Amino acid sequence: MAASSAAAASAHKLCMIPGPVEFDQDVLNAMSTAATSHVSPVFIEKFGSAIELCRDVFLAPSGQPFIVAGSGTLTWDMTAANLVEPGEDVLVVNTGVFGDWFGECLEVYGAKVTHVRAPFGDRPSLDQIREALEAKPYKLVTLTHVDTSTSVFVDIKAVAQLVRKVSPNTLIAVDGVCSVGAEEIRQDEWQLDVVMTASQKALGTPPGLAIMVVSQRALQVAQDRKAPATTYFGSFKKWLPIMKAYEARKPSYFATPAVQSILALQTSLLQLKEGGMDARFAKHREASMKIKDAVEKWGLKLVPVNREVAANTLSAVYYPKGVKGPELLQKIGANGIVVAGGLHPGHATEYFRIGHMSISAVNDDENHHLDKTLAAIESSLKELKYM
Amino acid sequence: MAASSAAAASAHKLCMIPGPVEFDQDVLNAMSTAATSHVSPVFIEKFGSAIELCRDVFLAPSGQPFIVAGSGTLTWDMTAANLVEPGEDVLVVNTGVFGDWFGECLEVYGAKVTHVRAPFGDRPSLDQIREALEAKPYKLVTLTHVDTSTSVFVDIKAVAQLVRKVSPNTLIAVDGVCSVGAEEIRQDEWQLDVVMTASQKALGTPPGLAIMVVSQRALQVAQDRKAPATTYFGSFKKWLPIMKAYEARKPSYFATPAVQSILALQTSLLQLKEGGMDARFAKHREASMKIKDAVEKWGLKLVPVNREVAANTLSAVYYPKGVKGPELLQKIGANGIVVAGGLHPGHATEYFRIGHMSISAVNDDENHHLDKTLAAIESSLKELKYM
Repeated sequence: MAASSAAAASAHKLCMIPGPVEFDQDVLNAMSTAATSHVSPVFIEKFGSAIELCRDVFLAPSGQPFIVAGSGTLTWDMTAANLVEPGEDVLVVNTGVFGDWFGECLEVYGAKVTHVRAPFGDRPSLDQIREALEAKPYKLVTLTHVDTSTSVFVDIKAVAQLVRKVSPNTLIAVDGVCSVGAEEIRQDEWQLDVVMTASQKALGTPPGLAIMVVSQRALQVAQDRKAPATTYFGSFKKWLPIMKAYEARKPSYFATPAVQSILALQTSLLQLKEGGMDARFAKHREASMKIKDAVEKWGLKLVPVNREVAANTLSAVYYPKGVKGPELLQKIGANGIVVAGGLHPGHATEYFRIGHMSISAVNDDENHHLDKTLAAIESSLKELKYM
Repeated sequence: MAASSAAAASAHKLCMIPGPVEFDQDVLNAMSTAATSHVSPVFIEKFGSAIELCRDVFLAPSGQPFIVAGSGTLTWDMTAANLVEPGEDVLVVNTGVFGDWFGECLEVYGAKVTHVRAPFGDRPSLDQIREALEAKPYKLVTLTHVDTSTSVFVDIKAVAQLVRKVSPNTLIAVDGVCSVGAEEIRQDEWQLDVVMTASQKALGTPPGLAIMVVSQRALQVAQDRKAPATTYFGSFKKWLPIMKAYEARKPSYFATPAVQSILALQTSLLQLKEGGMDARFAKHREASMKIKDAVEKWGLKLVPVNREVAANTLSAVYYPKGVKGPELLQKIGANGIVVAGGLHPGHATEYFRIGHMSISAVNDDENHHLDKTLAAIESSLKELKYM
């Protein structure tokens, strides 16, 4: 076992994609915790703590966290099913395929969806959004904080201010799958009604948990809805008493929680809180600048039209002229680093994506993930005679 | 780390509840696999293999497996949302609270649900079910193979034969959460359209995966439905191409799979296949008999009205007269074994539940989980002056 573990570790390639990210060893160790009852005192304490810690990480002291076994996508269903009634209008601020797909999910639950769009690599302007908001009353507006397909970043603070001003009753839902735990989010202060994420990105926990924090205002909207929500597993009504019970350190049952994943999440959330969120946001900005400065210095071009619309959690970079995408990705892999190809239909073959989140951004001084990644890309570009 | 791991291990109480169960060490080790891309060749191979292995374990060579991040409950949503259209009739063969809750889930998706019930500890007779089936045409009939709340076992083979005879167009869906991997199920041979389960019971993998195998006939019904399915994350239409792609060893994306959990599941499913399903069914029958014979020898009474309606995966046992439930559970815990209290409303305080699944049933000769459990219960009963 020891020998094969060592072999596996030596063969391990650094996972520098925009999620799943590299994981802290204590987090991974928690994943292999021996069988533990979902109503045992030790698990109740940790699950209760994880729920509380979400408030620290989302900077949402008044929010209601939900932690449910599932992919991040499940948080779209939960938002759509609980907060939108059939026939109601929703505005999707679209910055990539995750906007398209969230819109599709909303339509499944009966929403009438309007997309406000921008060219590939850019984001809709505040004026565009204002114009859309003034055209009709929306029940909900959705923002993708960072669209993982394009690396485009939305200034959710500014958009939220605009929505509150132009259409104060409209709920604001932020898809923070590729941002929570890395990009600055102050859910309470910015009055965001829903912030959604998944475990495997900047929260630094293996995939398998859908995580969201919901404002009291949005919970009330869900409670007052006329048409019953057409979801059972994703029902706020079902999960709310469970979250409240565990937070009060009492056992409760609706569906068996993913015990090991939640133990891992609690381990990671505690690390985030102890490290301080402001320091963490700063570290991700630094990491992003380091990667982006380096690739631009080599003459490569970023997908976002400028740095202001570029995320700090990943970098989407056009393949340089004369370099074939699959060849570059293969070389980088052979140099020990896994990066991701493009994802946006019509542009997927034009660019690749480097994730720089969680321990790879925060502990770069010790683990040198960013240096190793840049070195692997540079070597690969040289091997392909780009430089 | 080594010291605290050793301390944790020595403090570990055997988890003998009806799920989560004790896990094999190789399965736990897979849970802490280092960061792995969901589209990496190594993960694609393992996910593809896990999908294939479901067919071996469910004895469903023609079935379509779905493995999705979630609790077992999500498979109810997937069955209800994809296979039932609003206003259609569903018959729930009810043997405990999981029947009540599955019925509630079906109603959320617009089904008109009829329950056929039996007294606590018993199951509806074939005559009752026949009568219900003859009263109106049902789109779907649901069976809880083993209701975890009562330990009542349904003869799904006999009921399926009856349904095929009386109402051949009715789809048959089996909630196998507390049975798949332990109780005999021959999905193809018995013509079961849907068999659902979760990772944390007899499949021997930590909680966090919803797993189901669907017949080609049921897939066709889902495809031909008139009203679109009101689920996005649980949509067969979304997941089918993903399952087919991974099985063909090609990457594909709808929602990020729970990589580590799927690696663990693949490890466990391979162990099940290699051990042989018939041998596994027999081992669970033996384990069940060992536990039930012992508790009956002590004068305790089982919840199921007779052995024929009693599951092999757990034993629900009435507290003996004069013994207080919470005191007995506390003593058993102090003796190193975790068992579960009752779950059925109105009867919860009258009985406790012992899980005997997966490695605790199959490897009892080596790990002596059953002997340790019986010894802890016997000691506890003696400490409480029952014997």
